[in-house]
Amino acid sequence: MAQQHLDPTDPTAGPSPALGSALAGGIPTGEALAGYLRAQATEFLRALRLHRETGPVAGNGAENPVDAARALRRSVRRISGSLHTFRPLLETDWSEGLQPELAWLSGTLSMEHAYAARLERLLLALHRLSGATVLPAQPAAAAPSSATGGPATGGPPTAAATTDRGNLTVGAAKAGALLERQLTLARTRSHSTALQALGSSRFHAVADKVAVLASEVPLTPGAAATDLCVLAAAAEDRLTDAVTALPLVTAGSPYNAEALIHGLSPDPAPHPQDAPWHQVRLLLRLHRYAREALHGTDGQIDVRLLTAGQALDRHRDASEAAAAAASAARTPRIAPATAYALGVLHADQRHEVEAARFAFQQCWQKQAVSTP
Amino acid sequence: MAQQHLDPTDPTAGPSPALGSALAGGIPTGEALAGYLRAQATEFLRALRLHRETGPVAGNGAENPVDAARALRRSVRRISGSLHTFRPLLETDWSEGLQPELAWLSGTLSMEHAYAARLERLLLALHRLSGATVLPAQPAAAAPSSATGGPATGGPPTAAATTDRGNLTVGAAKAGALLERQLTLARTRSHSTALQALGSSRFHAVADKVAVLASEVPLTPGAAATDLCVLAAAAEDRLTDAVTALPLVTAGSPYNAEALIHGLSPDPAPHPQDAPWHQVRLLLRLHRYAREALHGTDGQIDVRLLTAGQALDRHRDASEAAAAAASAARTPRIAPATAYALGVLHADQRHEVEAARFAFQQCWQKQAVSTP
Repeated sequence: MAQQHLDPTDPTAGPSPALGSALAGGIPTGEALAGYLRAQATEFLRALRLHRETGPVAGNGAENPVDAARALRRSVRRISGSLHTFRPLLETDWSEGLQPELAWLSGTLSMEHAYAARLERLLLALHRLSGATVLPAQPAAAAPSSATGGPATGGPPTAAATTDRGNLTVGAAKAGALLERQLTLARTRSHSTALQALGSSRFHAVADKVAVLASEVPLTPGAAATDLCVLAAAAEDRLTDAVTALPLVTAGSPYNAEALIHGLSPDPAPHPQDAPWHQVRLLLRLHRYAREALHGTDGQIDVRLLTAGQALDRHRDASEAAAAAASAARTPRIAPATAYALGVLHADQRHEVEAARFAFQQCWQKQAVSTP
Repeated sequence: MAQQHLDPTDPTAGPSPALGSALAGGIPTGEALAGYLRAQATEFLRALRLHRETGPVAGNGAENPVDAARALRRSVRRISGSLHTFRPLLETDWSEGLQPELAWLSGTLSMEHAYAARLERLLLALHRLSGATVLPAQPAAAAPSSATGGPATGGPPTAAATTDRGNLTVGAAKAGALLERQLTLARTRSHSTALQALGSSRFHAVADKVAVLASEVPLTPGAAATDLCVLAAAAEDRLTDAVTALPLVTAGSPYNAEALIHGLSPDPAPHPQDAPWHQVRLLLRLHRYAREALHGTDGQIDVRLLTAGQALDRHRDASEAAAAAASAARTPRIAPATAYALGVLHADQRHEVEAARFAFQQCWQKQAVSTP
């Protein structure tokens, strides 16, 4: 992947003023990293304040608790990723203390949304497979009862896909009801866990650290003038190496039927073949954040990176949805028709996994079309 | 599709001597059709004699009853197709009397092989889906106990895929056993039906008519000198029109997930979306046979037509295998794990349907690379 540095004489590049001052002769230094971390910490505090203001009540304006929760996750991921990629430029004790706390927070905050989205995906698939007309669905995350900002009622999920059961066969309807029960329960638990986490002293300690970060970034001596590009390039190399190790030739051959191999395997664990793709997804994200630290967040977005990331998100979502269908099928005493529908659904999602790999391969083989 | 006529000056085209005499100034006439029908009728009689000689005992030389049964079906399809395409050139009473009898014979003779191949396909898929190592399978058609030539024992089918059940999960193993039971029963019945048919007076009447055809083709007055190309072109036009009506844009977009729509539909009937593809398969066959009548069977084969035909065969086979899995899942009192495995299997075969459509689209959009 071509790595272009910001050219300060380019009037179209438009770096932010804060970033401009962090460029020594056009080379982004540790000062740019500090600016990026300060900005992300500020965003974290803003999202947290917004989250507390909107509270458990549904959104009262342009922004709602779901947006706040999403912004919170977003900034946590970026701070955490930057700590990882630029570790040598940051005080070791500080970053090693904060890093696992951010991972805990990110994981805790993401679960409720993940379960809601998984249920939405599976119910939409069940309707598609039933040839039923699906009403335009509200995005699961925008539903008032979902996400960390609002109370999980345990009632029916808000996806419009569930409003019309009449079109489903008995098997598909029962499979949908079973998934709804199981994933809504998981979501409700995640909601409680997230609420508890946000009220815990552990969280307050993290929030305090991030509040300090918003004004003062603990760079190592000399880091302010150190070129960021070497560490960013290392992050990119890790990505490139991981992509090279993927079975891209197979993935680029449509209908290779690879994703459903082991679809009936006795091993109930997640598909081992998915792991390298999940890893590339994480490395791609780290690479994107490193680019943001170097070039600022105001510049052009690399469409290719974005599309590749979306394909890998879809891969992850379909993989987990397929596992949820398989897991639901192991519920004791279900009817054969329910199990059959879950089998069709599982295979459908595994083909989504395969389709996502194909999309990633197609996107990756193209040359980068825009760099900031 | 470009239609090239035989150039008698082309030394590579190599028409058979019989065909050469039927070309008036390079234009194939009704005399060529008569030659083709005589050849196919002779082939029918040869296959029938071979079938009677090898009898119900397994093959005792280079050719076995399976080959004989296949050759019988092959010639019946070609005679029947030619009667259809070149109807105006043949005596109406004769062709209208023979046509339905050939259709009956073709249908009766093909069922046993179809059930054996369907079981083979489903068991191989179950093994693939279980991540099990599949031993190199003997083609189902070459198995001594299969096809009209040998007795259907009702015992375990001969596909090597079934020899190793140890690698299958309980659900997959039970699904395999259920399919084996149902499809072996169907195959045994088809075997008996075919044997009865071959001993019936109805069959002897057909065989007598074909024996007459081997020496004397009832052309209409003037047909011997009539250009065949117009009727052959009409057959090609029917094919082209039917292909044009197919959703080829969708089919050419990999992972369009179209084939599994209605995968859980309440309607247990065969997928209506498959019908136009089955129709194109039949029209493609008629077009191929018309080309054979015009240009002889010794000439070059149009690889594109052959590949397209194979894709449509695969489409038909996968469509019927998917229906068999869905039908097995409706067996009363099966275990949920069995139903789940059948659901995965059904979806897998529906994706095979989609893959076959993609393969057809890819092949069809290429220019014809060789015409005789």
